[in-house]
Amino acid sequence: MTPFTDTLPDKRARISVTSYDAAHIDETPDCLPGQALARARAHRVGWIRVKGLEDVNALNALGHALEIHPLALEDIHHPDQRPKVDVYDHGVLITLRTLRTHRPESGRGPGLEAVSEQLAMVLGDPVLTTFLERRDDELFESLQERLRDEQSFTRKQGVDYLAYRLMDIVVDQYFQVLEAFGEELDALSDGLTREQPDPALMKRIQGVKAEMMTLRRAVWPLREVVGSLQRGDSALISEQTRVYLRDLQDHLTYVAETIDTYREMIAGMLDIYLSQINFRINQQIKVMTIIATIFMPLSFIAGVYGMNFHYMPELYWRFGYPAVWLVMIAMTAGMLIWFRAKRWF
Amino acid sequence: MTPFTDTLPDKRARISVTSYDAAHIDETPDCLPGQALARARAHRVGWIRVKGLEDVNALNALGHALEIHPLALEDIHHPDQRPKVDVYDHGVLITLRTLRTHRPESGRGPGLEAVSEQLAMVLGDPVLTTFLERRDDELFESLQERLRDEQSFTRKQGVDYLAYRLMDIVVDQYFQVLEAFGEELDALSDGLTREQPDPALMKRIQGVKAEMMTLRRAVWPLREVVGSLQRGDSALISEQTRVYLRDLQDHLTYVAETIDTYREMIAGMLDIYLSQINFRINQQIKVMTIIATIFMPLSFIAGVYGMNFHYMPELYWRFGYPAVWLVMIAMTAGMLIWFRAKRWF
Amino acid sequence: MTPFTDTLPDKRARISVTSYDAAHIDETPDCLPGQALARARAHRVGWIRVKGLEDVNALNALGHALEIHPLALEDIHHPDQRPKVDVYDHGVLITLRTLRTHRPESGRGPGLEAVSEQLAMVLGDPVLTTFLERRDDELFESLQERLRDEQSFTRKQGVDYLAYRLMDIVVDQYFQVLEAFGEELDALSDGLTREQPDPALMKRIQGVKAEMMTLRRAVWPLREVVGSLQRGDSALISEQTRVYLRDLQDHLTYVAETIDTYREMIAGMLDIYLSQINFRINQQIKVMTIIATIFMPLSFIAGVYGMNFHYMPELYWRFGYPAVWLVMIAMTAGMLIWFRAKRWF
Amino acid sequence: MTPFTDTLPDKRARISVTSYDAAHIDETPDCLPGQALARARAHRVGWIRVKGLEDVNALNALGHALEIHPLALEDIHHPDQRPKVDVYDHGVLITLRTLRTHRPESGRGPGLEAVSEQLAMVLGDPVLTTFLERRDDELFESLQERLRDEQSFTRKQGVDYLAYRLMDIVVDQYFQVLEAFGEELDALSDGLTREQPDPALMKRIQGVKAEMMTLRRAVWPLREVVGSLQRGDSALISEQTRVYLRDLQDHLTYVAETIDTYREMIAGMLDIYLSQINFRINQQIKVMTIIATIFMPLSFIAGVYGMNFHYMPELYWRFGYPAVWLVMIAMTAGMLIWFRAKRWF
Amino acid sequence: MTPFTDTLPDKRARISVTSYDAAHIDETPDCLPGQALARARAHRVGWIRVKGLEDVNALNALGHALEIHPLALEDIHHPDQRPKVDVYDHGVLITLRTLRTHRPESGRGPGLEAVSEQLAMVLGDPVLTTFLERRDDELFESLQERLRDEQSFTRKQGVDYLAYRLMDIVVDQYFQVLEAFGEELDALSDGLTREQPDPALMKRIQGVKAEMMTLRRAVWPLREVVGSLQRGDSALISEQTRVYLRDLQDHLTYVAETIDTYREMIAGMLDIYLSQINFRINQQIKVMTIIATIFMPLSFIAGVYGMNFHYMPELYWRFGYPAVWLVMIAMTAGMLIWFRAKRWF
Repeated sequence: MTPFTDTLPDKRARISVTSYDAAHIDETPDCLPGQALARARAHRVGWIRVKGLEDVNALNALGHALEIHPLALEDIHHPDQRPKVDVYDHGVLITLRTLRTHRPESGRGPGLEAVSEQLAMVLGDPVLTTFLERRDDELFESLQERLRDEQSFTRKQGVDYLAYRLMDIVVDQYFQVLEAFGEELDALSDGLTREQPDPALMKRIQGVKAEMMTLRRAVWPLREVVGSLQRGDSALISEQTRVYLRDLQDHLTYVAETIDTYREMIAGMLDIYLSQINFRINQQIKVMTIIATIFMPLSFIAGVYGMNFHYMPELYWRFGYPAVWLVMIAMTAGMLIWFRAKRWF
Repeated sequence: MTPFTDTLPDKRARISVTSYDAAHIDETPDCLPGQALARARAHRVGWIRVKGLEDVNALNALGHALEIHPLALEDIHHPDQRPKVDVYDHGVLITLRTLRTHRPESGRGPGLEAVSEQLAMVLGDPVLTTFLERRDDELFESLQERLRDEQSFTRKQGVDYLAYRLMDIVVDQYFQVLEAFGEELDALSDGLTREQPDPALMKRIQGVKAEMMTLRRAVWPLREVVGSLQRGDSALISEQTRVYLRDLQDHLTYVAETIDTYREMIAGMLDIYLSQINFRINQQIKVMTIIATIFMPLSFIAGVYGMNFHYMPELYWRFGYPAVWLVMIAMTAGMLIWFRAKRWF
Repeated sequence: MTPFTDTLPDKRARISVTSYDAAHIDETPDCLPGQALARARAHRVGWIRVKGLEDVNALNALGHALEIHPLALEDIHHPDQRPKVDVYDHGVLITLRTLRTHRPESGRGPGLEAVSEQLAMVLGDPVLTTFLERRDDELFESLQERLRDEQSFTRKQGVDYLAYRLMDIVVDQYFQVLEAFGEELDALSDGLTREQPDPALMKRIQGVKAEMMTLRRAVWPLREVVGSLQRGDSALISEQTRVYLRDLQDHLTYVAETIDTYREMIAGMLDIYLSQINFRINQQIKVMTIIATIFMPLSFIAGVYGMNFHYMPELYWRFGYPAVWLVMIAMTAGMLIWFRAKRWF
Repeated sequence: MTPFTDTLPDKRARISVTSYDAAHIDETPDCLPGQALARARAHRVGWIRVKGLEDVNALNALGHALEIHPLALEDIHHPDQRPKVDVYDHGVLITLRTLRTHRPESGRGPGLEAVSEQLAMVLGDPVLTTFLERRDDELFESLQERLRDEQSFTRKQGVDYLAYRLMDIVVDQYFQVLEAFGEELDALSDGLTREQPDPALMKRIQGVKAEMMTLRRAVWPLREVVGSLQRGDSALISEQTRVYLRDLQDHLTYVAETIDTYREMIAGMLDIYLSQINFRINQQIKVMTIIATIFMPLSFIAGVYGMNFHYMPELYWRFGYPAVWLVMIAMTAGMLIWFRAKRWF
Repeated sequence: MTPFTDTLPDKRARISVTSYDAAHIDETPDCLPGQALARARAHRVGWIRVKGLEDVNALNALGHALEIHPLALEDIHHPDQRPKVDVYDHGVLITLRTLRTHRPESGRGPGLEAVSEQLAMVLGDPVLTTFLERRDDELFESLQERLRDEQSFTRKQGVDYLAYRLMDIVVDQYFQVLEAFGEELDALSDGLTREQPDPALMKRIQGVKAEMMTLRRAVWPLREVVGSLQRGDSALISEQTRVYLRDLQDHLTYVAETIDTYREMIAGMLDIYLSQINFRINQQIKVMTIIATIFMPLSFIAGVYGMNFHYMPELYWRFGYPAVWLVMIAMTAGMLIWFRAKRWF
C-alpha cells in the first residue's frame, strides 16, 4: 500500500529526481515525495521533476519538505498564473507558460490554436523543482537525455544554469509556435487574395488574432521575469548565468516583436477583407446600374407602343417600327458612351 | 430614546464589533458608535464593521472616536471614490470597489451589468474599521464565520492580515464577475455566428464594453493601491503580510489583463458584426443584380413584340415566336456563363 | 479724476480685498490698485480679487505693487494659458481653467458646450491675488459669504488653505459639468436607440466629443499642477494643506477618468450609429431584392404572353390563362421558400 | 575680386553682424566671413546672421573662425535636421524649424500648406550665430529694428536672452500657423455640413492631417530642446533666462496640445464624411426600394391583363377595369401604410 | 589541402584584414582564420572583415582566436537577431540590420520590398571584426577605398571611430531606402487620385505598410543600441567618438520619425481608398435610383393602357394618347424638380 491510497492512480503525480555534478549522475525515475529531497541533494545539482498537479497529497508533502511558502504552493496548484517570479525565504518561484499549437479537427473552429500550460519552477540551492500540468508531458526529455552525457555543458554548471536551460527550451518552443502561426497567416493571406470574400475566412483571421492575445499574455510577462532575474541581486543566480539570461531576454523581445508584427498583419488583412467586400458591392451595383439605366427606358418605349389607344398615329406609320428601333439603338449607344466617359467600364 | 432619534430606523448604520486573538474572540452584533472602539480593543485585533453610509450621526461619532481625518470621513461618506490609499496621522484609509453582476429582467438593457459599490477601510493599530454601502451586505459573513474557528490562520495574525483577507475576498469576487462576463461574451459570440445581424446584439456587445470600463476603473487603481501598500514603508504592514499583498497584486494584474483581453475580443466581435452586415448586403445585391441583369433584357424583348405597330414583319413569321424563345434562352445562358466566369455564384 | 481716465468704465477691473484671521475680517469691496496690498496685509491672510483682465493700467499697477514677474503678468493678461504652476522669486503663479456648461439657443449647434475661462492666482505670503476674466463672475461669492462666519474652518487656516479652497470650488464645478455632459450623453444614446439614423444626431455626438477635448485640456494639466504643489518643497504650502491638495488631486483623477469613460462611450455611440445605418441599408436592400426577385420573372412571363405574334399556340389553349397563373403562383411560392431557407425573413 | 569668386552671386551667403550692449550698438550689414567674429566681439553681445546655406566657402570660413565642430557644421549645411540641441566644446548648436503657411494657387492641392525651414543657432560666449536657409528671409528684421532702441529690454541682457528672443519669435510664428489651420478646419467643417459629400473635400481634410504631421515634427522635439536648455547645467544660460525658457516651453506645450486637438477634430471630420456618404446611400436606397416595391407589383398586374389569351374572362367583365384600379390603389395604400409603420418616411 | 576541406568552396567565408594607423596601412585580401588576428594587430587599428556566415569552421576558429563568448558567436551565426549591443568580457557585440530596397519582377507582389540582412560587429581593442551574411556584399568597399588615402580622417582615429563609420554607412543606406519608399508612396497616392478604386492598389499600399514594419524593427532597436553605446561607460568608446554617436542617434531618430510619418500617410491613403469606393457606390446608386424612380411609374402607366379590358373608356378618347404623354412628361418634370431640390444632381 502506497501512502497515496486516496489518490486515483491516473491522477498521481509522477516524481522523478536527477542529481548530478560534472563527474556523477544519479536518476530516480519514480520517487516518493518524502525521498525526493534527499536524493536530489546527492550531488552538486538536484532536479526534482513533478508531472501532474492534481495530486494534492504529493504536492503538499513535497512543499513541506522543500519549505515552499503556502502562497507559492497555491500558485503551483492553480495552473492559471501569469508568468512571474516571486522571491521567498527558501527559494525563488518562477512560473511560466509552455506553448504548443493544436489544429482542431472540426473545420469550423479558429483553425490553429495555441495551447498554453503552466510550468512552475522552485529554484533553491542546490535543488531545482519543476511542476508540469500534464503527467505525460515530454517537454524536458531531450535535456534529461543530454544530461547523461558527461561532456554536456550543463553538467559542469550550477543549478541556476539548469533553470536557464529549462526556460530556454520553453522559449525555443515559442519560436516554433510563431512559425506555425506565420504559415497560417500566409495561408490566410493567400485565401484572401484568391477567393471570394467569405465570413468563414474572416472568422479564422479573428481567431488567429485571439490566439495572438494568448501568446502575448505568455511572452510579455516572461520577458519581465527573465529581466528581473538577470538584473536582480539574488545570490542564487551566478554572474555567468546572467549572460545567458540576457540572451534569453533578447529572444523573448524578438518573439514579442514578432507577435506585434503579426497583429499588425492581421489588422491589415481585416482591412483588405472589408475593402474587398465593398469593392465587390461596388462592382455589382455598377453592373446593375448599367443594365437598369439602359433597359428601363427601352422597356418604357416598348410599353408606350404596346398601349391600346385607338388614336396613336405612329402605329400606322410605314416606318414606325424601324424608327423605334433606331431610337432605341441610339439611346443605348448614348448611354454606353456616357458610361464610358465616366469610366464606369 | 436612543441617541439616533433623528435617523430613520431603516437608514441607521449597523455597527458590529469583533475582537480576537489566537485564544479569544468577542463578538458584539449591534453596537453603539460610542462603545465600538472600547470593545474592539479588547483583544489583539479589533474589527469594527459598519454597514450603511446614510447615518451621518453614527459615522461622525465613530470618526471622532477613531480620530479619522475629516477628509477621510468625507471620502467614506461619498461612495463614488476611486480606489486609493491615503496615509493619515492616525491610520490608513483604503477605498476599493466591490463588484457583483446583475442581470436586469427587462431584455432591452445591456444584458449583464456590473454593480460596483464602495468598501472603505480605516486601518489603525489595533483596530480595522470597514464601511459598506448597503445595510444588508453579506460580503464578509463567511469570514466572520471562519474567525470563530480557533484553528483559522487569520486568528493568529495581526490586523494587517485581516485587512489583506478582506481585500482578498473582494478580489475573489472580481474573478467571479470576470467569469460571468466571459460566459456572456461566449454567448454573444455564438449569437453573432448563428443568427442574423441584429442591432440588439450589437447593443448588447457595446453594453459589455461599457461594463468593462466599470471593471477597469475598479481594478486598475486598486492594483496601484495594493502595490503601494506592499512596497510602502508603513509600519502597520508587517513583512509577512507584504508577501500576501504581493500575491494579491499578481491576482489583480491577472484580472486587469483579462479585462483587456475581453476588450480586444469585443473589438473583434464588432468587426465581425460589421463585416457580416456588409457581407449580407453583398449577397443580396448579388442576387438582385443577377435577377435584374437576366430579366430586364428579356422583358424588353417581350415588350418589343408586344408593340402594336401595323408593320412589324416578325410578328407574321411562321417561327417568330419560337425564335424569340430561342434568343431569350441563349441570352440567359450567356449571362449565366458570364456570371459564372466572374465567380458570382 | 481717477487715475483710470484712459480706461472705459465698463472695462475697468473690479478689485476687492478681504483680509482676515480667526478673530477679524475686513472687506474692501471696491479698491484702488495702489491700496490693495496695504489693505490685504491688515490681518493674517489677505485676498485680493481682480475681475476683468482688459484694464491694463490696473493690472500693471497691481503687478508692480505685488512684485509679480513680467512673464507672470503677461500670462495673467492673456487668458489662454494652459493650467500650470510657475514658481517665481516673489510668489507662485497658478493658472487654471474654470468650466461652465452653456446650451446655445439655435438648435443647429453642438447642443451642449463647455465654456472655459482662466483663473490666475498669485500665491504670496500672506497675500493671495486672484484674476478672473469676467467682471461679473460670481464664482467665489459663496466662499466670500462663508468667510464672514467666524466659525468657518477657512478663517482659522493660512493663505495656502485659501488657495486650496478656491481650487476646490473650481474642481467642484468640473463635477457639475461632467454631470451635465453625462445627461447629454444619456439623451443622445436614447435618441440613437429610438430614432432613425440622423446626421444631426451624429454631429451632436461629435460635438460632445470635441467638448471632451476642451475638458481634458483643462483637467489633465491641472492634475499635474496640484500634484507638483502637493509634492513640491515650496515653503508656502504647509504640511496640513498638502493633505487637502492630495485629496483634490484624487478628485481630479476621478474627473480625468470620467472624461476618458465618456470618450469611450462616444466612440461606442459612433460605432452604433454606423452599424445602424448599415443595418438599415441591409434591410432596405433585402426588401427590394425580394420584391425584384419575385416580380421581375412574373412580369417577364406576363410580357411574353402580351406579345402579338400570330402563331402563339398557348394563347388559344382553353386553360392557357389559368395555367400561366399556376406557373406564376408556383414560382412565387418557390422563391418564398428559398428566401425562407436562406433566412432572409 | 572678392574671395567668393567660385560662388554664384545669387548663392552667396549674406552675412550681417550686430554687436551691442546697453549703451552701444554697431551694425555691419554685409560682412566678410573672416571679419565677422572680430566685429561681433566689439561689445557685450555679438550676433552674426547668416542667410543662405549654399555658400560652402563662407560657411566653412565662419565655422573655422568660430571653432564650430565639423558635425555641427554638417548639420547646419543640411537643412533637414529635426530640432535638437547639441553641446560641443566651443558652443551649443540649436536647430529648430520655422513655419509659414502657404496656399498654392492650383485648387487641386491640399489647400493650405505648412512650409518648414531650418534655423540653426550656434550659441557661444559672447557671440550668437544664426543660419537661415533663404537669403531673403525677413524673420528677424523686426527684432533687429527694436535692438536699435536703447530702451529695448534685450539690449540690457546677455547673449542667452538674445537666443531666447529668436526662439520666441519662431514660436510666435507657430501660433499664427495654428490659427490659419484652425480657420481652414472651420471652413472644411462648414463645407462638410453644407455640401454634398465630395472626394475633393475628403482629400483636403487628409491634406491638413498630413500638414499636422509636419507641425508635430517641428514642435515636439523643440519642446524637448527648450526643456533641456532650461534644465541643463550649461553655464551659457543664466538663471534669469531660464525663467523665460520655461515660459517658452509652456507655449510649446500649448502648441503641441492644439495640434493634437486639431488631429482629433480631423479624425472626427473623416468619421462625419463617411457617415454622411453612408447616410446618403441609405436615403437613396430607401427611395428606390419604396418606388420598386410599389410599382413592380402594379406593373405586373397591368402586364397580366395585357396578355393576349383568348380565354381571359376578367377582360370581358363590365367592371373589370375599375376593379383592377381599385386593387392597385389598395395595394399602394397598403404598401405606404407598411412603410409608414416601419418609419421609412 | 586547406583546413576547410569540409566546406563547400562557395560557402567558404571570405576573410580580409586591414590594419592601419595614420602612417601605415596593410591589407590582406584573403586571409586564413588563424592568421587574421596577428595581421590585424600589426598597427594601431585592426579590421577583420568576414563575409558569409555558413562556414562554421572558419567562424569557430575566428571566435576562438578572438575569445568571443559562445553566445555571441551563436548570435553571429543566426542572422535573425534584432539590433542589440551585448558587453562581454573580451569585447562588445553589436548587431544591426542593413537595408536595401528590391523591386520584384512579377507585378503581383508588394511592388517595393525592403531586404534586411544582419551585420554583426565585435568591437575589441584594437581589433574590430565585422560579419556580413552575403559573400558578395560590397557595402564597405568605398570605405576600404578611402582608408588607403593617408588624408582620410578615419586613418587618424581609433577602432571605435571605425565602428562608428561602419554604422554610419548603414544608416546612410536607411535614408536611401526611405527615399525609395517615399517615391513609392507618392506614386501610390497619385494612382489613388487618378484611377478607379482597385483592390490591387489597396494590396500594394498594405504591402508598403508591411515593409514599414520591417524598417521599424531594424531602426528602433538600433537607436537604443547607439544610445547605450554613446551614454555607456565602456572604456572602448572615446569621448570624441561619443559626439559622433550622438549625431548618428539623431539621424536614427529622424529615420524613425519618417517611418511613423509614412505609416500615418498609409493610414490616410487607406481611408481615402475606402471613402472613394463608398463615394462611387453612392454615385452609382444615385443614377440607378433616379432612373428607376422616373421610369418605373412611366412604364406602369404604359402598362395600364396596354391592358386588354373591353371596357376601358380612355382608350377611345380622341386625345387619350396625347393626354397620357402629357401626364408622363409632367411626372418626369416633377421628379426632376424634386431630385434637384434634394440636390441629387
